Amino acid sequence: MPPQSPAVDQGISELFQLLRDGAPRTRAELAKATGLARSTIAARVDELMRMGLILPQADGVSTGGRPPSQFALNPAAKVVIAADIGASHATVAIADITGSILAERSEPLDVAVGPVPVLTWILDNAIELLAQSSRTIRNVAAIGIGVPGPVEFATGRPVNPPIMPGWDKFDVPGWFHHHLHVPVLVDNDVNIMALGERAISWPACDQFMFVKIATGIGAGVIAGGALQRGAQGVAGDIGHVQISRGADVPCRCGNRGCLEALASGAAIARTLRGLDIEARNGNDVIDLIKAGNIDAIQAVRQAGRDVGEVLTTCVSLINPSVIVIGGSMARVGEHLIAGVREVVYTQSMPLATEHLSIVQSVTAERAGVYGAAMLAVDRALAPDVLTTGLVAP
Amino acid sequence: MPPQSPAVDQGISELFQLLRDGAPRTRAELAKATGLARSTIAARVDELMRMGLILPQADGVSTGGRPPSQFALNPAAKVVIAADIGASHATVAIADITGSILAERSEPLDVAVGPVPVLTWILDNAIELLAQSSRTIRNVAAIGIGVPGPVEFATGRPVNPPIMPGWDKFDVPGWFHHHLHVPVLVDNDVNIMALGERAISWPACDQFMFVKIATGIGAGVIAGGALQRGAQGVAGDIGHVQISRGADVPCRCGNRGCLEALASGAAIARTLRGLDIEARNGNDVIDLIKAGNIDAIQAVRQAGRDVGEVLTTCVSLINPSVIVIGGSMARVGEHLIAGVREVVYTQSMPLATEHLSIVQSVTAERAGVYGAAMLAVDRALAPDVLTTGLVAP
Repeated sequence: MPPQSPAVDQGISELFQLLRDGAPRTRAELAKATGLARSTIAARVDELMRMGLILPQADGVSTGGRPPSQFALNPAAKVVIAADIGASHATVAIADITGSILAERSEPLDVAVGPVPVLTWILDNAIELLAQSSRTIRNVAAIGIGVPGPVEFATGRPVNPPIMPGWDKFDVPGWFHHHLHVPVLVDNDVNIMALGERAISWPACDQFMFVKIATGIGAGVIAGGALQRGAQGVAGDIGHVQISRGADVPCRCGNRGCLEALASGAAIARTLRGLDIEARNGNDVIDLIKAGNIDAIQAVRQAGRDVGEVLTTCVSLINPSVIVIGGSMARVGEHLIAGVREVVYTQSMPLATEHLSIVQSVTAERAGVYGAAMLAVDRALAPDVLTTGLVAP
Repeated sequence: MPPQSPAVDQGISELFQLLRDGAPRTRAELAKATGLARSTIAARVDELMRMGLILPQADGVSTGGRPPSQFALNPAAKVVIAADIGASHATVAIADITGSILAERSEPLDVAVGPVPVLTWILDNAIELLAQSSRTIRNVAAIGIGVPGPVEFATGRPVNPPIMPGWDKFDVPGWFHHHLHVPVLVDNDVNIMALGERAISWPACDQFMFVKIATGIGAGVIAGGALQRGAQGVAGDIGHVQISRGADVPCRCGNRGCLEALASGAAIARTLRGLDIEARNGNDVIDLIKAGNIDAIQAVRQAGRDVGEVLTTCVSLINPSVIVIGGSMARVGEHLIAGVREVVYTQSMPLATEHLSIVQSVTAERAGVYGAAMLAVDRALAPDVLTTGLVAP
């Protein structure tokens, strides 16, 4: 769609933001809600229909004369591509502009093969999924991608990602723009998991924290209703906070006593090996827990307490109403969360924990792909992108 | 001003939010920027002038025919009352709608005398200051108040404030509404100090933290450009986070080892008394530092390290670009901040501290009154208040 004059833009955007909730409205209702002239509304409605973003609906209640026509969001108007790239697997999906997943595919894929093979896999599979959904690449309004490492969100470039060789400062949006010119949003996996878990399980919660406990530990922070990335995009990086029992345990970051060095899946496995229990990694720990191994249960509970020690400060600082514990280690269930709760509820001020829920992730391994879809939809429907069709530089 | 229809409201509000920056604009420029019809613009401009919020300006550049008239914000239109209530002193000021202080008065006042005497003092003095500024109570658009305790921001009621007997759940806005029916915003002192320090010293900083170190310790958190109060309004309450060297030191909150029990002005004085040095309170500590007492310098430096230990987690969680150290103990200068920096820069991840500034408060004891003014102005000029003149229930 061509760029339009600023005046036209604003009217269109204002109208569409009203219609995003999906409820049908008449021209008169739209005029009343926006303060725009009836003639302006008529022109804007025609433009939004031409763009395919809204559709005429069954007529409203007759007012005696000719019944007014109603218009509502066309959820099928556009689609987004959502991708969740993990260390050793990847998921790609097609979602409509309400964030509902239309088609999805997951495969083992090593992120360390580098950006071009991974992004090619995403694009090729997205095109196949689009065809399955009777769409083409021309229907795509935006792309959202989560990666297992830090990202400079404004540019979509990974920054010194420790487990993503070849990805440092790679221009992910630029690569996609050779193929289709739509907004490309890249964020770290924990941030998109926070967006996904909230969208599915806690849509009304504006003070929200998602803690991923897996090979690493990190958090996604939603405060005042918005995902907070911080000044350098590293907000939520709680895995390298030093904890009290850490003392001399070395961490891969170069420091000592970090939360991640004591409470990640790998760290719990190491603790168990110290007790002569065979545990190569977090998955083995989960198997041991399922088999009822007491040492594994105790080690996981202690890891929960360690996470809780750091979360106590987080609770004091940002006062969330919900903390979701996710990531692969959350699959051990209540033992981990019990440890978290034990410390947070003991050490925090009563007012901060009075209505605080600490719960297990509901979306589990799908949090990422849901969140990537939300990231793409929110950008695709933002006023500037919507009205100009242009990708921000 | 009377309530108006929603359609009129939106047009007026949109126009005024454009003009808030103070730059003069023509009717044609306003029409282009809003998408509203020229006739609508003309009516809205007249209405805003009638409300006294904008004024005609010197005419713009002639376009050959009759030169278009320009309009701009009238900073003198309305004023706000700003009050900063401390434990043992109070400040009240009159500010214009840009937040500039027009008149101000401070007096010793014990907050423990209860809400009615304190609020009466604010109102009586505000009326005198209004007269000095050639205004009356009818020119007041909003009231902003900071108090030394937790507040339920939505209702303006203090909640279990430990040093404010008689204030618990007192309806501060309701008391003022017997005298004038304008929005009354009440917040805790640290939150308004954060707003004030940012407005004066760091207006472009969207990731900001203000740490008050005085008799107590607390923080105000601005993330994504917005003050974050959290789910229960207690965000920033970092004084009761347990620190590593705390162990068995009892805190007035009932817990042990809290930051406040080891690093507040009172705690430092207690440490010095343990060394047989006479120090009744934080002020004595400041005097000792100014006299070059080595034990006092070392104790303050250690308090800085303690604060830094908690801030390290805060830096990881919200990744601020500026941390301002304020409150009365900040007057000891570099010794305190050196301790904070020592720990934060040693223990945090490099990306989070690469561009992080940790600095002393510039506004010092005036941070609160500046912030109370900003709080009132932002509410007074918010679209709903502006256009209906009504106070939210």
